[in-house]
Amino acid sequence: MNLNPRRTVAELKELRSLTSDPEGAQRVAFTPTWTKARAWLRDKVDGLPLEIHDDAAGNTWFTMQGETDTYLVIGGHMDSVPNGGWLDGCLNVLAGVEILRRLQSQYNGRPPVTVRLVDWADEEGARFGKSLFGSSACAGTLDMDEARGLRDKDGIALPDALKAVGVDFEGVMDSAKELKNAGAYLELHIEQGPVLLDLGLPLGAVLGTFGVERHAITFRGQAAHSGSTPMNRRKDALLAAAKMSSEIYRIAERSQGGVCTIGSCITRPGIVTSVVEECRITLDQRHLDGAALANMLQEARDASETFAREGNVGVSWERLWQIAPRPFNDDLIALCDESIRETCKVSHKLPSGPLHDAASVATAGVPTVMMFVQSLHGISHNKIEDTREEHIEMSVAALDRLAGKAMTWILQRE
Amino acid sequence: MNLNPRRTVAELKELRSLTSDPEGAQRVAFTPTWTKARAWLRDKVDGLPLEIHDDAAGNTWFTMQGETDTYLVIGGHMDSVPNGGWLDGCLNVLAGVEILRRLQSQYNGRPPVTVRLVDWADEEGARFGKSLFGSSACAGTLDMDEARGLRDKDGIALPDALKAVGVDFEGVMDSAKELKNAGAYLELHIEQGPVLLDLGLPLGAVLGTFGVERHAITFRGQAAHSGSTPMNRRKDALLAAAKMSSEIYRIAERSQGGVCTIGSCITRPGIVTSVVEECRITLDQRHLDGAALANMLQEARDASETFAREGNVGVSWERLWQIAPRPFNDDLIALCDESIRETCKVSHKLPSGPLHDAASVATAGVPTVMMFVQSLHGISHNKIEDTREEHIEMSVAALDRLAGKAMTWILQRE
Repeated sequence: MNLNPRRTVAELKELRSLTSDPEGAQRVAFTPTWTKARAWLRDKVDGLPLEIHDDAAGNTWFTMQGETDTYLVIGGHMDSVPNGGWLDGCLNVLAGVEILRRLQSQYNGRPPVTVRLVDWADEEGARFGKSLFGSSACAGTLDMDEARGLRDKDGIALPDALKAVGVDFEGVMDSAKELKNAGAYLELHIEQGPVLLDLGLPLGAVLGTFGVERHAITFRGQAAHSGSTPMNRRKDALLAAAKMSSEIYRIAERSQGGVCTIGSCITRPGIVTSVVEECRITLDQRHLDGAALANMLQEARDASETFAREGNVGVSWERLWQIAPRPFNDDLIALCDESIRETCKVSHKLPSGPLHDAASVATAGVPTVMMFVQSLHGISHNKIEDTREEHIEMSVAALDRLAGKAMTWILQRE
Repeated sequence: MNLNPRRTVAELKELRSLTSDPEGAQRVAFTPTWTKARAWLRDKVDGLPLEIHDDAAGNTWFTMQGETDTYLVIGGHMDSVPNGGWLDGCLNVLAGVEILRRLQSQYNGRPPVTVRLVDWADEEGARFGKSLFGSSACAGTLDMDEARGLRDKDGIALPDALKAVGVDFEGVMDSAKELKNAGAYLELHIEQGPVLLDLGLPLGAVLGTFGVERHAITFRGQAAHSGSTPMNRRKDALLAAAKMSSEIYRIAERSQGGVCTIGSCITRPGIVTSVVEECRITLDQRHLDGAALANMLQEARDASETFAREGNVGVSWERLWQIAPRPFNDDLIALCDESIRETCKVSHKLPSGPLHDAASVATAGVPTVMMFVQSLHGISHNKIEDTREEHIEMSVAALDRLAGKAMTWILQRE
């Protein structure tokens, strides 16, 4: 069979009718609907010359043995958030299936480079609040102590949920062997943002995933009666915190490529007749460059202290989470860019704000690149998530070109 | 008996030990502790030539009949908030008692002008969430429909609580007759703010109570992923709302005497990984001048619309509450100022941010003035509420002088 991107669109629709309800996709990892989606996937590759197995972390590997020990990996994830979209994760997998079909046809089932498709387990982390479970186990970066204690909203522990799908939690790190001879990793994904939409471009080559600094910042002033306290006597925690809201836009602009978000603001006592005593905001900062990210964080800290001093209030910081930037492989970025231009003339290079399984794989030292396809509305994790069908078809074609180039690149490095 | 302000301090301490616990004063209206405080008060005036009765709204009137039908009223309230201070409300009453003693002594029980002391019922509104119950009934401004539906945290309705202390709710407006021949109303109160403390002055003459405009302002933008949404694509409801926080300080400054407070800020979805879709803040604006208050409100509305436009978000306003300014009587303000200067050399005129029973009385058309005594820490409604004893004594002496001048003023107007 030749490459048939229209078939990918048809299969995505078939999967949608099988695993969605009126609120959207329901393929949450470790649930019956997810298991159904994975069984459907195995049916779809029936007849292809593949070795198929689940690894120690529950990731499913489809291997088309070629002429090399080193292999090309194409990855995606069948799991979705609850009420999710029809493309996030499964587009990546089904595009990989189409490439395996093309390779089988072109090389009579034995390509010059071994090619493996992986369906990662629980990329979204929707049920246990921690994303990239399967890929981080495989990459050796999973925090076992933290994961052991995770529970879903019904109080079920992650190890028990894994047991129910046949995975022994204490053995998940054994999945690391699956990446041992990986020569390159490719992942197609919907952008989940508006950059390509704004530029009017179907596809982009991804430079890497952002590093993230996530903090809670608490300003502490003094409660005081809103009627009897002159303005110049106030220690207004909200006034200091609110100044951060504009400042982060200036910090992001100076950083050349970073983003900053204050997503939550909580005031205490939080009543109409009192000056705010305590104001807690969250700050999420992201950048592809580690030094630039560190600088953004320092600028935010400095600004918070200036605003606190100006307002005669105190300020304290608490780190909620952080992750380093994961820049992708320069050669593969160039090949991805080339594949896109050959497919639809114009390409664009952009960083990824959200994390993806590709970040885990890159951390494990495997040369990695991602390709983004335009998202309509710039929205995902929602039933209105969508991409034009002609763009989906282009993305499958471009990923196929990239797979061919990556196989050649792997052979050159052998 | 001559005026003895030290006795007032001693009586305030006696009341404190009778009606406080380690958390502060517990004289919440319509509770046994409040009833005990009122019984104690009747004991204190035993022997003075007074006619004493509770009016239809539960206010207690102590009348020393003099040579006129027109009378001078001195007011205060024995009730406190839960965990309240030792001075708020009862200082006013006990200073009045001391003045009655002086008048009895000087005029042998029949002063040239009739003088009435009133202990207003439920000034604080702590139990039913609505302040100035007794004085607003007496002034004819009580909203009967609203009051009828008020319930305390145990679900007890205000009419039932009133019944338990012998008051028929449906008849409370009959108390209006008590103010019919009032020629002037005087009220002493702790400042509950830091103005006199900052100026280093014991006493001030109050110009009136602020008018209040209280609104909820809701900015509506769009939720978007904190990692994948470029800064220039965001519709950040918090950014627009936060700009209001600094702006209200500029608005207050331009208003020459007004105050503005944003006491609450609520963000939705309010999570670290999303741009804020909806941000609701409360705005409380106060000014002694009605036109200036209206102008402050208009400036805030205009600013909110400018910030919404700048941030590409929507904005809507909802009025929570409003009350007009209650300016006090010019003649009485001048006499109050004079009394203070005669007592402690320097006076200061200032508005009242909080509402007081005096605002009700002024609304009923009775010439009114208040005198403030310095608050330590600028704090009230708290067990740490305090005023220096020498300042308390000065306040009793100054109020007594003011009572004398007000009686003369009433006679001149007869």
